[in-house]
This record gives sequence, structure tokens and C-alpha cells, in this order.
Amino acid sequence: MQYSDKILNTPSSFIRNILKVTGEPDVISFAGGLPNPISFPTEKLREAINNSIDVHGTKLFQYSTTQGYLPLREFIAAKYKKTHGLDIHPDEVFITTGSQQALELIGKVLINKGDGIIMEAPGYLGAIQAFTLAEPNFYSVTLEEDGLNIAELEQQLQKPNVKFIYTVPNFHNPTGITYSAEKREAIYEVVKKYDVALIEDDPYGELRFRGETLPYIGGGRLENSILLGSFSKTVTPGMRLGWIVTKNKELLDHIETAKQATDLHTNIFSQYVIYEYLANNEYKEHVDNIINLYRIQSDAMLDAMARHFPPTVKYTKPDGGMFIWVTLQEGVSALEVFHAAMEVKVAFVPGDPFYTHPENVNTLRLNYTNSTPEVIEEGIRRLGAILHAYAPAEKVNA
Amino acid sequence: MQYSDKILNTPSSFIRNILKVTGEPDVISFAGGLPNPISFPTEKLREAINNSIDVHGTKLFQYSTTQGYLPLREFIAAKYKKTHGLDIHPDEVFITTGSQQALELIGKVLINKGDGIIMEAPGYLGAIQAFTLAEPNFYSVTLEEDGLNIAELEQQLQKPNVKFIYTVPNFHNPTGITYSAEKREAIYEVVKKYDVALIEDDPYGELRFRGETLPYIGGGRLENSILLGSFSKTVTPGMRLGWIVTKNKELLDHIETAKQATDLHTNIFSQYVIYEYLANNEYKEHVDNIINLYRIQSDAMLDAMARHFPPTVKYTKPDGGMFIWVTLQEGVSALEVFHAAMEVKVAFVPGDPFYTHPENVNTLRLNYTNSTPEVIEEGIRRLGAILHAYAPAEKVNA
Repeated sequence: MQYSDKILNTPSSFIRNILKVTGEPDVISFAGGLPNPISFPTEKLREAINNSIDVHGTKLFQYSTTQGYLPLREFIAAKYKKTHGLDIHPDEVFITTGSQQALELIGKVLINKGDGIIMEAPGYLGAIQAFTLAEPNFYSVTLEEDGLNIAELEQQLQKPNVKFIYTVPNFHNPTGITYSAEKREAIYEVVKKYDVALIEDDPYGELRFRGETLPYIGGGRLENSILLGSFSKTVTPGMRLGWIVTKNKELLDHIETAKQATDLHTNIFSQYVIYEYLANNEYKEHVDNIINLYRIQSDAMLDAMARHFPPTVKYTKPDGGMFIWVTLQEGVSALEVFHAAMEVKVAFVPGDPFYTHPENVNTLRLNYTNSTPEVIEEGIRRLGAILHAYAPAEKVNA
Repeated sequence: MQYSDKILNTPSSFIRNILKVTGEPDVISFAGGLPNPISFPTEKLREAINNSIDVHGTKLFQYSTTQGYLPLREFIAAKYKKTHGLDIHPDEVFITTGSQQALELIGKVLINKGDGIIMEAPGYLGAIQAFTLAEPNFYSVTLEEDGLNIAELEQQLQKPNVKFIYTVPNFHNPTGITYSAEKREAIYEVVKKYDVALIEDDPYGELRFRGETLPYIGGGRLENSILLGSFSKTVTPGMRLGWIVTKNKELLDHIETAKQATDLHTNIFSQYVIYEYLANNEYKEHVDNIINLYRIQSDAMLDAMARHFPPTVKYTKPDGGMFIWVTLQEGVSALEVFHAAMEVKVAFVPGDPFYTHPENVNTLRLNYTNSTPEVIEEGIRRLGAILHAYAPAEKVNA
């Protein structure tokens, strides 16, 4: 058999592959990006399921519409009004099989082979995978502590056939950074001059444990704004429910055709159930509980890093979300450190898969949402000992 | 915005679009392809859900593996042993978001722009849509009453870069025909000489109300055999669970990468629940009930057609599944008849969307699974009156 170029060029998920290695019970894993299962509203979802079956019966089990369940789309539209003051019509909301599918559909609908996509460097590896299937040229823009580098963005927008810019403006995966209000404004001023779409992927935006919600970069004001959202980090990832919001009707029509051809429609049972859950529970209270949990875990990790890491190692201090990004000294291979850390049963994700043109980088991602503060302390202590071995001699004693 | 060539070339589902027109409650619709909702084991599924939550708790709601839930894959493997005597290893089973996704993944993994796909004419429109996204050249082979025309198949296999042949050998959509044992053997003898995959898509195979189960064409003996299956027609379509079976490990590895990039994994909640349902209920008894229901409906439609249709109109007599295929006299436009039938509130699907190079054909598809025998009688009576108007004068009085 001969396989397609696009699949031969698509990286298989480094994370999913290393999770196979790091999955043993005695490994302390900061590698995954999983929500903490104690945050799942299991009994409330059971109630929602039983109520939905009582009320809607066989409708939960039949084929359904490609666009998604209307009451759920209405709920999502109303949520944007509440959180960001945006006027979104339910018909501008499109339900997807997780927001991973949203990425893949957008790539399919907008990208001809060789068209340009502007990506954050580093950026979300699931997006790199999804877009690669459409065989684009990736143009990288350095992600700084407050968002994209503006000069580089301007420069990359000159490249031929750039179709969209992909960003994760809140509690970024993998870095944990949040775009500043000023940087958002600056990006908007640049992007509005071009006929490109701006994707703001926001799976973590509700999980803010410090500071105030910031306005979207393009959402609500840019003609080709695309907002992505998900219930994976706030209710359940297992049910695979995400969504796309855009006011570009032609784009949504094409996405509907792509979705029909891809999986007909999103699991309708799950759409009824999540809506029923959202309609009958204090969603904000539930999210606040997750935030409190993750704040404690994040603080525990940052505190342990301050004590155990050599001072030459730099890292971000997230205001929300699930990740901390670590920059080792220039020249240190995070992949090499990964193997050394696995010897002492600690796992993380080396930085390479987060770049569209990976080299042997000195950066790595830590996740704190799936370990208790005690386990975090122990894991960071072990990792710190490894990092000291890679730090320059004069700094070890600092 | 400029959209991709592949999406501009992908037909949006004619059926889904006409369902919007035909959805009004006073329309008698033979247009859809929906299972009868009275066949859904709603209360048994509720039990399975509650038991699954009791036993597995948060695992139903967390991220999961791309390949699919192992006990479900084991169940599917064992089912092939029971029904067809095939030795399938659970690792040769891959769970997809409905079998529509299986089609799309296979197109992605095997097709470069311009590669060849051999399709039945007429063939399943969802497959035409899914494969179109990979920008292939379609090569048609006439579907006869007992399967593909062998001479045409041989001829099309000479075309450049043909990657696979797509078939629905049992109770075919849209025609309702079943490939004969002899034709299966003849196709096998041809295909085994070529380095191509043979897809046997079999969503309806269990719904046989006449005759014996036939062996697959390539399943169990062809190196690049791909079998597709689904729980959509036997348990629930709303939960979107299908699967791929192949012994080609490299192909499955690429499918896994494509699936990761497309939607990470299939809804794990639904996988637990369907497995729990299958493990604790008499699946065969349940399927037998569906078969009995559809046999009655099929008989009612064929009986009404014999009485109400002009004798110049030909149609298939399915041994299972959900569809009857009608061939009007040469020169009659099924699309024109569709509009006339909608005037008297009867809907069906004109043949055009089932061809890769549609012209104004004289064929149409009727579905019988979603109407009672009384409604079928009334709908076919109205449709018969229309068809008489299109029949030649001498035949109207026959």
C-alpha cells in the first residue's frame, strides 16, 4: 500500500506516545493535559442523563442535525454575552466533536496545499497535527510573555496565501501565558488590515484563578473572527463536545458540509445531556470549584520549583489553565532531560512537538492539574535534582 | 475569504438538504435513512448507563485512547467469529465516530489528490462526500442486481493509482441489492491480483430478513481487506459508534494518527455504555425484533408498489436492510417526479446524489423503515398516481 503524503507528514502525537511510557502507576506524570477527574460532576451528569431520557426519550438515540442541538447552541451564545458582552446568534454557533475537530474542519475548509497558516511558536501540538493534514506552509511567530511578537506577525502576514492565524490567548497551551490587553489591541490593529481569519482557541479561558477576564482579540469586531470553545476542561472531555463561533455565514456553511462528510453530526445524546446539566446546575459554582483546585495545585508546583530548581531555569507563572512552561539554559536538550527524569520516574513533555519545525529545544511543559500537592512536591524535587546536574557548576551552589 | 478547492468540490448532502423540506409533519417521507426509533433499546441503555457509572465512575468522562475501548473491540472481534468465522484480533479493530468517520479517515490516509477510487454506480452518497474531501478521481463500476460488473471492474483497475474499491455488499445503500456468492468470488479473484484495498462497508448486514449470511468478499482472505461496521442501525445512531477492521497494521497505525489529529478519540462514555448494553443483553434477540419490524414494512411497501405503480416501473426486492431502488422509464427525470410528489406531500431521494458524475437520472431511493404499513400504503398510492402520469399512455391502461 502507498499512503498519502499528508498522513506521512503528520506527526503522531508525541504526548499520546509518551503517555504509553509514562502511564505506569509509579511514574509521577506532569506530561498529560488531563483535567482532574475529581472535577467531573459525575452524579449531576447521571441526573441529567436520566432526566433527558425521561423528557426526550428516543430523540437522544436517533440521527440528528449537523449544526448541533439548538438549546445547547443558545446556551453557548448566552454565555458569550454574559462573560464577554458579545452578541452571538445561536446560528453562529456550530457544535463539533471536541474542539480538536473544529481545528481539523477549519483546516479542511480554508487550506489548499501550500497555503499559509500563522502559528504561535511554541503552539498547541493538536493544532499542528490537525492543520498538517491540509498540507499548509506554517509560518511561525514567536510567542512572548504577553502574546505574539508584533513585528514578526506583520512580516509573516506578507507571506503568500496566508489564510489564518491560530492563537490560544488565555492560559496558553503549552506555555500557560495570557495575552495582555495591550498586545490584543496591537494584534487587532494589524490583523484587521488583512483578509485572513483569526482563530482564538479558548478551552481554558474560564479557568482563571488570578486577574480579570480580558476581551477577545478579534471576537465581536473582526469580520473573520473564529472563536473556539469546549466543555472538555469544565464538564467532561470524554463526551467530546466543542464548538465554533463565527459571524461569517459562508464559512459556517462550508464547515457544515465538511462536518457532514466527516462524521455527519456530533453525538446527540451527549449534547442533550450536557445541555440538561448546564440548564439545571450552577455552572459558575462548579467552575469556581475547579479553579480553586487548580490554583492550589499551581501554587504547589510554583512553590516547589522555587525551592528545587536551579536559578538558571526560567518558567512562566500562569494566571489560570493547566500548564507551566520551563526554559532551561541555552544548549540543554529537554529531550535528554526527559530521559534522565524518566530514570527517576518523573515525566513531562519536552518542547519539540510544540514547534512546527522542531529542533532539539531547551523548553518543556509541566502539567499540574492531575497530581496532589504532595505528589507535585515529590516530583518537582526529583526533577530539580536532575536539572541541577545540567546547570552550570557556579550556579549549582547559588 | 478564499475557501479550499476540496470543500468547494464537496457536494453538501442532498438528503440532509431535502430533509429540511420534507421534515414537515404532514409529509410522508420515504427520503431519510433513519432506523425506526421504536427499535432503540432506550430503557436497556438507561440501565447500561447507570451500571457503567456505578462501576467505572469518572473513567466514562475522562479523555481516553484513540484506538477505542478494549472490551468493545473484543466484543466486535468475537462477533465476526460468530457471524462469519473470521479470526480478528481486538487490536485489528479500531473504533470511529460513526462509520462515516471511518470513510473520511481512509480517504485521508490513502488518497493523494488525483489518486483513483473505484465506486459502485450508484453508490453510497456519504462515501462520495467523505472521499471527495481527499480530491480523488472517481472511477465508476455499474452495480448490477448481483454486484459489481466484473468486466468494468477489471477495466477500471487499470486506471492510474487506484488505491481502493468501495463496496456495500449487503442490502446496499441506495439499491437494497445484495452481492451474490458467485459475484463475491469473482470479485475476489480479480482484486487479489492488484495492490489495492477492498472496503466492504456493512452497516446493514445484520438486518437480513431472507436467506443466509454470505461470506465477505475479501474479509479474512485479502491482504488489504477493510471491513467497516456500525451500531447505528442496530443499537443507536445518536451515539455515533462505528469501527474499522483490517489486518494491515501499517494502515491502522496511519489511521490512528489521522484519528488523533481529527478528533483525538471517540466519545468514551458511549463506548462504555454500548459495551455494557451488549454484554448484558440478548443482542441477537434485539436484532431479530428489528428484522421482524423491517420485514413487515418492506413487505408492505413492495405489496403497495405492485398494486399502485405502473408496470413500466422496475424496482429491487431487498432481502434485508432499509431501501428499495426504483428505476423509472428511460428519459423520465426522477428529480421532476420528486417535485411533483412533493406537491402531494410524498418524499423520496432522486437518484442523482448517488452517482459521482450525476446527470438527470431516472432512478430513485425509497426507505421503508420509518413509516407504518398504513402510511406506506397511502404514500405509495399517492406516488403511484404521479408515476402513472409519467408512464407511456399505452401502459397506463395495462
